[in-house]
Amino acid sequence: MEQYLFRMPVDEGLNLVAPTTTEKLAAAIFNLVDGDWEHLGRYLPWVEKTTSVQDELNFLKMMAQQQIEGKTYLFVIEFENQIVGTIDLHFINPTNGRAEIGYWLSSAYTGKGIMTRCVKKVAAYGFKMLELNRIDIYCDVENVASAEVAKRAGFDFLATQPDAERYHDDFHDMQQYVLLRRNFMEG
Amino acid sequence: MEQYLFRMPVDEGLNLVAPTTTEKLAAAIFNLVDGDWEHLGRYLPWVEKTTSVQDELNFLKMMAQQQIEGKTYLFVIEFENQIVGTIDLHFINPTNGRAEIGYWLSSAYTGKGIMTRCVKKVAAYGFKMLELNRIDIYCDVENVASAEVAKRAGFDFLATQPDAERYHDDFHDMQQYVLLRRNFMEG
Amino acid sequence: MEQYLFRMPVDEGLNLVAPTTTEKLAAAIFNLVDGDWEHLGRYLPWVEKTTSVQDELNFLKMMAQQQIEGKTYLFVIEFENQIVGTIDLHFINPTNGRAEIGYWLSSAYTGKGIMTRCVKKVAAYGFKMLELNRIDIYCDVENVASAEVAKRAGFDFLATQPDAERYHDDFHDMQQYVLLRRNFMEG
Amino acid sequence: MEQYLFRMPVDEGLNLVAPTTTEKLAAAIFNLVDGDWEHLGRYLPWVEKTTSVQDELNFLKMMAQQQIEGKTYLFVIEFENQIVGTIDLHFINPTNGRAEIGYWLSSAYTGKGIMTRCVKKVAAYGFKMLELNRIDIYCDVENVASAEVAKRAGFDFLATQPDAERYHDDFHDMQQYVLLRRNFMEG
Amino acid sequence: MEQYLFRMPVDEGLNLVAPTTTEKLAAAIFNLVDGDWEHLGRYLPWVEKTTSVQDELNFLKMMAQQQIEGKTYLFVIEFENQIVGTIDLHFINPTNGRAEIGYWLSSAYTGKGIMTRCVKKVAAYGFKMLELNRIDIYCDVENVASAEVAKRAGFDFLATQPDAERYHDDFHDMQQYVLLRRNFMEG
Amino acid sequence: MEQYLFRMPVDEGLNLVAPTTTEKLAAAIFNLVDGDWEHLGRYLPWVEKTTSVQDELNFLKMMAQQQIEGKTYLFVIEFENQIVGTIDLHFINPTNGRAEIGYWLSSAYTGKGIMTRCVKKVAAYGFKMLELNRIDIYCDVENVASAEVAKRAGFDFLATQPDAERYHDDFHDMQQYVLLRRNFMEG
Repeated sequence: MEQYLFRMPVDEGLNLVAPTTTEKLAAAIFNLVDGDWEHLGRYLPWVEKTTSVQDELNFLKMMAQQQIEGKTYLFVIEFENQIVGTIDLHFINPTNGRAEIGYWLSSAYTGKGIMTRCVKKVAAYGFKMLELNRIDIYCDVENVASAEVAKRAGFDFLATQPDAERYHDDFHDMQQYVLLRRNFMEG
Repeated sequence: MEQYLFRMPVDEGLNLVAPTTTEKLAAAIFNLVDGDWEHLGRYLPWVEKTTSVQDELNFLKMMAQQQIEGKTYLFVIEFENQIVGTIDLHFINPTNGRAEIGYWLSSAYTGKGIMTRCVKKVAAYGFKMLELNRIDIYCDVENVASAEVAKRAGFDFLATQPDAERYHDDFHDMQQYVLLRRNFMEG
Repeated sequence: MEQYLFRMPVDEGLNLVAPTTTEKLAAAIFNLVDGDWEHLGRYLPWVEKTTSVQDELNFLKMMAQQQIEGKTYLFVIEFENQIVGTIDLHFINPTNGRAEIGYWLSSAYTGKGIMTRCVKKVAAYGFKMLELNRIDIYCDVENVASAEVAKRAGFDFLATQPDAERYHDDFHDMQQYVLLRRNFMEG
Repeated sequence: MEQYLFRMPVDEGLNLVAPTTTEKLAAAIFNLVDGDWEHLGRYLPWVEKTTSVQDELNFLKMMAQQQIEGKTYLFVIEFENQIVGTIDLHFINPTNGRAEIGYWLSSAYTGKGIMTRCVKKVAAYGFKMLELNRIDIYCDVENVASAEVAKRAGFDFLATQPDAERYHDDFHDMQQYVLLRRNFMEG
Repeated sequence: MEQYLFRMPVDEGLNLVAPTTTEKLAAAIFNLVDGDWEHLGRYLPWVEKTTSVQDELNFLKMMAQQQIEGKTYLFVIEFENQIVGTIDLHFINPTNGRAEIGYWLSSAYTGKGIMTRCVKKVAAYGFKMLELNRIDIYCDVENVASAEVAKRAGFDFLATQPDAERYHDDFHDMQQYVLLRRNFMEG
Repeated sequence: MEQYLFRMPVDEGLNLVAPTTTEKLAAAIFNLVDGDWEHLGRYLPWVEKTTSVQDELNFLKMMAQQQIEGKTYLFVIEFENQIVGTIDLHFINPTNGRAEIGYWLSSAYTGKGIMTRCVKKVAAYGFKMLELNRIDIYCDVENVASAEVAKRAGFDFLATQPDAERYHDDFHDMQQYVLLRRNFMEG
């Protein structure tokens, strides 16, 4: 499959891959999630609802549909020829020039700075290609690793949002990080 | 028209009215907005796009559609038998138990505590009828009157959101107020 | 729930309530129907198909949808703080200025003139708010109580329509009552 | 065009033709209506809104759509190789086994018993093919010719419906004729 | 049912019948297919998926829908008062003036020249009524009878299309026959 | 824009780019077409209908929509950092395992073997990623350059299709080239 993927290079060995709505790609992502549900499921409520390749394919189609409408951009992360996670721009609002970034990474690939570099690239994509003015990142207050990514990627802590999301039958406070176009420095 | 409206009493002389998607009600609201555009238009970007009764009727229909889907509840404010503004719950998210409240009042009726009482009533509606857990209010940092309403209605200031909205060709910082179900006291 | 309903007063202790598409209201109506199926089911073919709160909620949503399009107006009847039945304007045809009224009442509340007063109010709503010119009521020839309501509300008998409806596996003759705007006297 | 039409014979020289949604047939019908608007427009409100072949084609497509859903059957009337009018079953309600018949005939072909024979054929189609139990015909109280057709085709007068339709800016009383399956005699 | 069908005569005893989307017609066609699946199923992949009258009715509705849009015309073949098969124009492309003809005949009626005459009639319908410029027929290279029909109806062999269709879990070569408007001679 | 594109390398200096439905990419393609209409318009009927960036953007959205449904895959051709044309798989039919390839190249880049290499790559994509069994290429009999591409990419001439397409008010014969999976050799 590798030679038939569309890639946008991030840096040495790291690429963002354009998701095709094919069963092949859906299977590759599903297998990654399925083998890592303890790590991923902790802060990602959708993990426990993704129980088949078809679920993942339906998700890819929904995201592709939203991309046509300019609401969401999904990118698959490839590191050293392996698919290792995804990152996306969502809640894109052209009127206000805003969006949010979301991401997840297989537990086998954490600690290498992969996500920080991807967040920088996707933020640049938002500011340059989509002409956004502000991008937010939300992460569970207990998800220290995710917060570190946001900070290293240049996002500023703004506020702790109380009871921001409900999952696993409980309300969770979320840290809100913000990057304004005028504070964004490429490179 | 008065005897054919559905009302929910707030207190002495103050009612919330259920919006019907009739030309009669659309005309009453449009006339109120149309005669007060300087006051209302300053912080409400939709005012300058509402140029006919038909625009208002289309808006009422869109809101009624969203109410069926459980996303938005719109209420018309009636004070001493006059329609004087509207208030709504929007961005209703049952998964997270969240929503936002938005409102506007004719300039002829400010300074009487009308909106504070309406916000309390609508917040109660959200917590009791819709089983929400958290309600937010956003207001332009320059809109002191709106912020006072939020505070008097029991909402707590959480953060100033930079460049939160773009209107009148400029980005505007917004103050964010939050009321959690556990901090809400009825009465 | 009572303090969060929208009401239009009919007279002493009697209100029309605006139906919200909430599970709470759907449950209240379903329980009323479910406990009274022998009385209600005799002339109302939909009763035996309404077997859950979800059925009733779907019905309320369908009616709300038709109300946005101006085809149907549904009202819930509240008597002495109890929900006791519903009344509606349906088959609304603005070109011809026509509609029909339909209604049902819990068996525990018959014989008090509740429905006659409601029909008068809803007819007034149709002539005044919706600018109708003619309203019809149809009732099974064996449903004497329903015919009495139509007559007491000022409707005139026009014709017996043979084999007008099929329900309970049989054709039923229906009495047709008509009220023209010029014969309608408010009060 | 004649050799590419689908026909159902009524009797000597008289056929019902299945309407195709082709420009050719739309043009043939439009020309017939367009040359006879004084006669046809008096009791048919749609005549003055049919101002082009495209209008007629859109109408044929709408009717074909309703036929797929089983709501309406439209038939074109051909007499001595000329298209001379149309007849239809509409408001088809399979639950109640009911429908209405509507028709119009070019002024050049009235007085020959054409429509009476067509109504009998279409009524038979409704009772036999569609298993209807009752068919109604409505005609303006001033439209004596149309009432004569209904009577000669075996329909019984039931009632005069006051202010039944609004057209030409006025309300019109309509005579209602009814034929029950048990009173229908073929032949 | 016979007296309520719309027919276009082909020649002595042979008619094309306009398909109505009625259960009666669906049942007549389904029974014909169902009793002849060995003969019909060999080259028609849809036969094994048509397992009920409802399947056939859904097919008739889909074809009627496509006819409204001008993409497909379906005709039922009647020979000596029996329904014996169908023939259709499909893939109608007005821009290029092209379409394809497809057909099947009950095994009890082969060898009588029925289909050749029907193909000629339907081709004439396409060239005259729909103003086509070219019509194609494809048949499995093993389906000699079908190829004979195409040739006798005046179509010219153009090419053998390798692996043109996949059915019964195998790829099948198809012969392609073509008739251009300029080579078509009526009669 | 270059650093925010998704690429699939073909060979030295030559890439296929994943089309995003952004105004930026639409403008780049539109400008290429708009400056080369004499060359491109001769055999591509859509060129004269593409008169604005919005037309091109709508086309990209339509193609993205069809890609989600698996009917069409569009690729933008980039040579030495310039967008120089597009190539696509269309009429994808998974049941029969078939599709067609279409392509166009800016006149400034012909004669370099660019398209032959792209066709090979896209054919490989179809056989490997989409599991096709057969791919066709059609070109106007006068378009010798296009036919040469097909042949050099390994496609076999099958037939000349008479009056295959109508454009510029005339019917055009098309050469049909075919590549079967079993004849396809990668590399």
